[in-house]
Amino acid sequence: MPFEISDDFLDNLSELIAKDQSKEITTLFEDVHFADIAEVLDELDFDEAIYIIKLLDSEKTSEILTELEDDIREKILENLSAKEIANEIGEMDSDDAADIIGELSVERQDRVIKALNDEELAADIKELLSYEENTAGALMAKELVKVYETWTVAGCMRRIRGQAKEVTRVHSIYVVDKQDKLVGRLSLKDLIIAKSDQKIADISKDSVDSVNVDEDDEEIAKIMAKYDLEAIPVVDKNNVLVGRITIDDIVDVIRDEADKDYQMAAGFSKDVEVNDTIWELTKARLPWLILALFGGFISVSVLGSFDGAMKNYPELFFFTPLIAAMAGNVGVQSSAIIVQGLANDSLRGSLFKRLLKEILQGLLNGFVLAALLMSAGMLFLGFPLNLGVTVAASLISVIIIASIIGTFIPIILAKRGIDPALATGPFITTSNDILGILIYFSIAQLVLGF
Amino acid sequence: MPFEISDDFLDNLSELIAKDQSKEITTLFEDVHFADIAEVLDELDFDEAIYIIKLLDSEKTSEILTELEDDIREKILENLSAKEIANEIGEMDSDDAADIIGELSVERQDRVIKALNDEELAADIKELLSYEENTAGALMAKELVKVYETWTVAGCMRRIRGQAKEVTRVHSIYVVDKQDKLVGRLSLKDLIIAKSDQKIADISKDSVDSVNVDEDDEEIAKIMAKYDLEAIPVVDKNNVLVGRITIDDIVDVIRDEADKDYQMAAGFSKDVEVNDTIWELTKARLPWLILALFGGFISVSVLGSFDGAMKNYPELFFFTPLIAAMAGNVGVQSSAIIVQGLANDSLRGSLFKRLLKEILQGLLNGFVLAALLMSAGMLFLGFPLNLGVTVAASLISVIIIASIIGTFIPIILAKRGIDPALATGPFITTSNDILGILIYFSIAQLVLGF
Repeated sequence: MPFEISDDFLDNLSELIAKDQSKEITTLFEDVHFADIAEVLDELDFDEAIYIIKLLDSEKTSEILTELEDDIREKILENLSAKEIANEIGEMDSDDAADIIGELSVERQDRVIKALNDEELAADIKELLSYEENTAGALMAKELVKVYETWTVAGCMRRIRGQAKEVTRVHSIYVVDKQDKLVGRLSLKDLIIAKSDQKIADISKDSVDSVNVDEDDEEIAKIMAKYDLEAIPVVDKNNVLVGRITIDDIVDVIRDEADKDYQMAAGFSKDVEVNDTIWELTKARLPWLILALFGGFISVSVLGSFDGAMKNYPELFFFTPLIAAMAGNVGVQSSAIIVQGLANDSLRGSLFKRLLKEILQGLLNGFVLAALLMSAGMLFLGFPLNLGVTVAASLISVIIIASIIGTFIPIILAKRGIDPALATGPFITTSNDILGILIYFSIAQLVLGF
Repeated sequence: MPFEISDDFLDNLSELIAKDQSKEITTLFEDVHFADIAEVLDELDFDEAIYIIKLLDSEKTSEILTELEDDIREKILENLSAKEIANEIGEMDSDDAADIIGELSVERQDRVIKALNDEELAADIKELLSYEENTAGALMAKELVKVYETWTVAGCMRRIRGQAKEVTRVHSIYVVDKQDKLVGRLSLKDLIIAKSDQKIADISKDSVDSVNVDEDDEEIAKIMAKYDLEAIPVVDKNNVLVGRITIDDIVDVIRDEADKDYQMAAGFSKDVEVNDTIWELTKARLPWLILALFGGFISVSVLGSFDGAMKNYPELFFFTPLIAAMAGNVGVQSSAIIVQGLANDSLRGSLFKRLLKEILQGLLNGFVLAALLMSAGMLFLGFPLNLGVTVAASLISVIIIASIIGTFIPIILAKRGIDPALATGPFITTSNDILGILIYFSIAQLVLGF
């Protein structure tokens, strides 16, 4: 079933475009899903993509536009007139339409909205644009099927036949009172099973999950995943039904959030994508690297302050990268598990218990690793006992302290309202590097006395 | 709307259980969603959890069981008889039922399946258990609404009223031919809008996305996310309709996959959770730490082999953690972006172009960082020029090589069918540490000649 984009297909298409064989191209794309056409367009030269957008009918191109990569869509929209964009927008659901108009400059937004034939859609888009990013309001669509509690099943079916044509997918039918306040829901299935003279109020479910229009999108994702919901109605502060969010948009929120956390842990300062330009990628990578360099500088100073050891115990310096690396790895492990626990709301119990648990893990890991290190160092590198003890004791201390830091930095960040995922990656590695080296040489000084 | 578990609530509940006030407890949970009750049970003592499972009716407890954390469910199932488990299973959808039975020992599986009253469900469960893990077959449910293409809308509505009662959510109605082969689909909405004397074949959509029963679950997640599907039918190799997968199960696949990648990058060798025991957590952390220790050992040997520099250029050794850290950070960035590109199928273009892109990024990052490092080293630490040049040149080389390694290891792993996420984290950091130090001292030897 998946449509595969081959080089042959692309070459053939480019040739058809060059020869302006519009009929052949239309036929070629006839049975291809818009998400696949969007992928083809992402691969084509920009002029070729524009050619195809202008060629296909707006019912298809409106869907393609919503699926394109952001930078390519931006360029295409720049090459369309306000009227042409309005034609595309007119075919979209209100949430997709608002997303795309939101990418335009304010001045172009006005012109496109004015050019829309559909006044209701124009009003919906204006409303959706007014909500803050990453809230239920910005995510929801205005299209939904709504019935009044006083209606009968038969009357309801008649009205739904009208409303449903506008709504791509009917998950639930929302039941409202005279003031448009959400009072219940029923599924199409319930309606089909019911007798035609029953009242809606009698067959609808009273308890209906809903979210407020200001709710954060990640919170909505958690709620929908937890309760296995496929759509959730959105209400304003007076409980008036204003829109609905469907699971396909939430799937995107979940994927974006996972990507963001992963990139943050890997040391990117902003959202990037493998096909971004070298300049964009470098801009995203450099800030954390500069921070790491700065941290590295501190570690240079720390090492410099222990240069008295150089004379009698030069071997100590051979171990600094090992100690620093272990501190970094342990810290990242500890913080990653906390970041995930925070993300899944599964972090429970007191801070003290958490601390104890980390120290015990640190001890367990530390003893195993220190024993390995000490025996290997003494057997293969011929270390004297006091040096072996120093390195082993340092390793255990460093691992325990790195665990504690890795655990508490994300917890503290989360308490202050900062994304805890910021803690993993370069931040933890760098601070643990420095601290690890400091602890290591302090213990060495204590044991060996230089 | 979200139900919050407070300490007061838990204390109150424990007291009611101790006093065996079953009526009050039943009332307490009356309007609470089963996913919330599962969270309460995760918090309670084990005996208390068993008490509640035995108290509430199986319609509710069957749902609670599917939502519980694995280890707690395992313990509860151990304390229920085969007949009691069969009663719970009897209330579940076939996919949930098979998942839970699959956790039992083979011998208990047989006893529970024999104890089921519902022969159709028993057969369905046996079939679902026969598919390999992480395939469409293991993920799908047998419950679906199916109609024959020759039926009329009116006849179809009658039959659906019967079938739909069994199916929790009707997304699509699947149209099959006489041999039960999938030939189309229609939505409930289409059915409601249609006239009652129309033929199903006339209103159904011919092109229907489906997946084969052997398809990998991550592949299905990609397909459903790409095409915004809420359910997808599953067919066997003869295109006979055998089940369907719904988006809520796919949401779990996406979340699990993201968690797995994140943990792999953080250096866990198996799936862990913040509330796991110290022993389980240590077992998951130790393997990568031992690998990192082994890598650290190699870096010790590399440094030891350059001990000739100790006499004239001791400062060189102060920079080893800095160089190693930069190599590690750059490597993780490079591999993370490739891992994501591979996961999203967005990695295109030739390997040569990819290499060039990485080298250019490395040069850009490298020059900025080397300039910072050199000026800071010479200004604040009073380095002579030749030392400054050595460290700066090494940093640039190390960054470029770390980028290349970070880029190509995940690509090579993916080509060999190994999860590329394995590359990020300790593996890349450790190998880049060693290589970074080696490059650094080799360049130093060349420039300074010790």
